[in-house]
Amino acid sequence: MTEYRIAVQVSLRPDILDPAGRAAEKSLQSMGFAARDARIGKTITLTLDAADAAEAEAKAEQMADQLLANPVMENCSITVTPRM
Amino acid sequence: MTEYRIAVQVSLRPDILDPAGRAAEKSLQSMGFAARDARIGKTITLTLDAADAAEAEAKAEQMADQLLANPVMENCSITVTPRM
Repeated sequence: MTEYRIAVQVSLRPDILDPAGRAAEKSLQSMGFAARDARIGKTITLTLDAADAAEAEAKAEQMADQLLANPVMENCSITVTPRM
Repeated sequence: MTEYRIAVQVSLRPDILDPAGRAAEKSLQSMGFAARDARIGKTITLTLDAADAAEAEAKAEQMADQLLANPVMENCSITVTPRM
């Protein structure tokens, strides 16, 4: 078994309103930054034991589907790296 | 001016408790996944005009310092990519 570090990036789908992102964008603009299209997503990082990277990725996809992301409103992408 | 897509990854410092990450970890474990060390961070993505990538990165650092991250409790890393 190898230790893998998993990062699950969850972002709202483009057609879903993001009030927190909008608020951050307005604040940045009032501070003089010409920022636009600001969106706020979340990243869940965790450690997992698996036989190989493919197994780790399959488990991470199950975790994302079953708990970490809401497929109706959110997109998600998974990164798997062996732990040093 | 070129359009740049900025991603500011904000994560809690390792010595700061993360109750939401702990809750996700417990839920994953109760579902049969042997996940550990789960932490939840956020990613702010936005679009910015700048003369070059160095200027875009400098602006993004200012935004992170002044608004997007709390340097006492959070680490942050910035990614700059030219927009297609």
